[in-house]
Amino acid sequence: MTTLSTWKDKALFTPGPLTTSRTVKQAMLRDLGSRDTEFIAIIQDVRQRLVALCANPDEYTAVLMPGSGTYGIEATLSSVIPPDGKLLILINGAYGNRMLKIAEVHHITTTKLVFSENTQPDASALEAALAADAAITHVAVVHCETTTGIINPIEIYGEIAKKYACFYIVDAMSSFGAYPIDLKSCGIDYLISSSNKCIEGAPGFSFVIARKTILKATCGFARTLSLDLLAQWEGLEGDGQFRFTPPTHVILAFHQALLELEQEGGILARGERYWLNYEITLNAMQAMGFRPYVDEGKRGVIITSFYYPEHPNFSFKAFYERLSDKGHVIYPGKLSHADCFRIGHIGRLTAGDVRTLMAAIAETLKELNVDITQKVEE
Amino acid sequence: MTTLSTWKDKALFTPGPLTTSRTVKQAMLRDLGSRDTEFIAIIQDVRQRLVALCANPDEYTAVLMPGSGTYGIEATLSSVIPPDGKLLILINGAYGNRMLKIAEVHHITTTKLVFSENTQPDASALEAALAADAAITHVAVVHCETTTGIINPIEIYGEIAKKYACFYIVDAMSSFGAYPIDLKSCGIDYLISSSNKCIEGAPGFSFVIARKTILKATCGFARTLSLDLLAQWEGLEGDGQFRFTPPTHVILAFHQALLELEQEGGILARGERYWLNYEITLNAMQAMGFRPYVDEGKRGVIITSFYYPEHPNFSFKAFYERLSDKGHVIYPGKLSHADCFRIGHIGRLTAGDVRTLMAAIAETLKELNVDITQKVEE
Repeated sequence: MTTLSTWKDKALFTPGPLTTSRTVKQAMLRDLGSRDTEFIAIIQDVRQRLVALCANPDEYTAVLMPGSGTYGIEATLSSVIPPDGKLLILINGAYGNRMLKIAEVHHITTTKLVFSENTQPDASALEAALAADAAITHVAVVHCETTTGIINPIEIYGEIAKKYACFYIVDAMSSFGAYPIDLKSCGIDYLISSSNKCIEGAPGFSFVIARKTILKATCGFARTLSLDLLAQWEGLEGDGQFRFTPPTHVILAFHQALLELEQEGGILARGERYWLNYEITLNAMQAMGFRPYVDEGKRGVIITSFYYPEHPNFSFKAFYERLSDKGHVIYPGKLSHADCFRIGHIGRLTAGDVRTLMAAIAETLKELNVDITQKVEE
Repeated sequence: MTTLSTWKDKALFTPGPLTTSRTVKQAMLRDLGSRDTEFIAIIQDVRQRLVALCANPDEYTAVLMPGSGTYGIEATLSSVIPPDGKLLILINGAYGNRMLKIAEVHHITTTKLVFSENTQPDASALEAALAADAAITHVAVVHCETTTGIINPIEIYGEIAKKYACFYIVDAMSSFGAYPIDLKSCGIDYLISSSNKCIEGAPGFSFVIARKTILKATCGFARTLSLDLLAQWEGLEGDGQFRFTPPTHVILAFHQALLELEQEGGILARGERYWLNYEITLNAMQAMGFRPYVDEGKRGVIITSFYYPEHPNFSFKAFYERLSDKGHVIYPGKLSHADCFRIGHIGRLTAGDVRTLMAAIAETLKELNVDITQKVEE
């Protein structure tokens, strides 16, 4: 496989920013006025395409919010929970904890259910918590915890949230575009993702797909100006414009990325490509002697955490740098209790790119004199 | 002059997003890992170059904050004013009012001094207010009020703020890079601008240039997670990275834009080009019979507001659309009390581009049968 970039940039096996197609980047070679007709039409098309990926446009709407994915999470939590609301967060990794930090800084009454990083949040614990505390109004969870790559069963939590008449917020940052998600059947009121994940755009904004009637009822709840979700939506619905200067170039790239998602065959086809990237990675890594951190049934195809090999010659820094010198960027771990590194499977990467990485890893292990295969060679 | 873009996009005579150079846009044709060495070095170079434009790097530092310029203002106001602080805002346009809105949403105790949009805030009124109210801890003002294009004398307000031991916050969104500003001699503790103004980058982040000792003393004041100015600075100073995913492509464009600013001869040379754009615009527009809204001594070279001509055939919508069809995007007005439109002078625009716009305006007036010259022709 040849790379699409003439610059021959390193391949990014990370959770994002990702390797994107050359044509997505080329879409940024234009300067459009943010309040001009052509750009307004592009915003509208982006918003419609986002909703079409996961929900009925009569019931759901898309809000674009400049900034990183975390801004989208903060925009949602700080805008949709009323002063007397109470949030329950299911936590099994760094991004669940980040939601907790956001809730704390905005003085939102919050309760948490914390699980170990290689375990999915327990649905019965959620049900017990909601049954025991009628004050809880909102439930939030991360779909793919990028900390580990674990996939949480959002449809099960959604069913419970609805049973107790709670609003349901899902951080689908690194899964949206790779996993089919039907907002209605999952009971999701707010889903958040960002431009530089599985839609394969450039980083620069997040987006929230929200149930219209629920969003409209949040007037007066926003705790900031810039991240006011309802006001942002009202602006986009009103004159079709952002309230404040949008990242025009990044939005042009994202629009092109949405067209290319469609050309690839949509979310299912994209998910299959990622799954193949994951399969090749996992098989090759296990054959080399690496062990994945998350058990098979819970692993997603977005990113995989591997334990550091137990070998005296292994140093992650040397491993990372030698792979980087060979043109492959992998990702450090983010776990609280285990030494791991991560390999991402998303972005404009093919099976060929993955096999090249696997060969580079094998070569690097040899260079470092790290033999971690079970059977003694020769 | 030939345009630098192969797409032949419309020329943007707006306050931003602006027309940028082709090479600035081409810098976005790369995918860099946000935590990889090469990108970290670029962030560092961007921050150093920003400080070098306006201050002593031993005393001042630059913080990059994803989002639009308004995010930078909100990051500053919501992060640096203590719970028992009190803010005074000098207001003579929409952007002063926006600071007031931000202060209100964060429940910051605030007092305002409001002046008409074609008047600079009165320094003696500021002095009287500070003398009368010892509770005021922070003073904020907009340098170039993009509402009208008026330039406010920030050095005078700074002197008064310092006399009363107040911290001084300047929104230099649309002036930074065009007007030389020495932070120390103006007494500025926090200056805010954004990537898509006179540095001529793409939109996607704001930046705050802050006095280090003052910023360091703001621990615990932040009212959000994403827009926490001190935490963002600590991240950049610590491992050199953004806390949350940065807009990598936009930062690459901005880095290139900073190199091109240097190549042009720095802020003075750029300011001269903009001044020439302004001069050509003003002379041609006045010759056609248009009247500027702001008096000569207060007008800046960033953007000029012109009254709608008093002629029954004039319609701004038709005027705007015909100019847009001819390849020129001008900007509507934002005044509360007068019907105006605006023409920007900033971005990668030359005297040739401006003359082409002026010819298009003359042609459009003829098409619309709007003759507003004083003397009867023929």
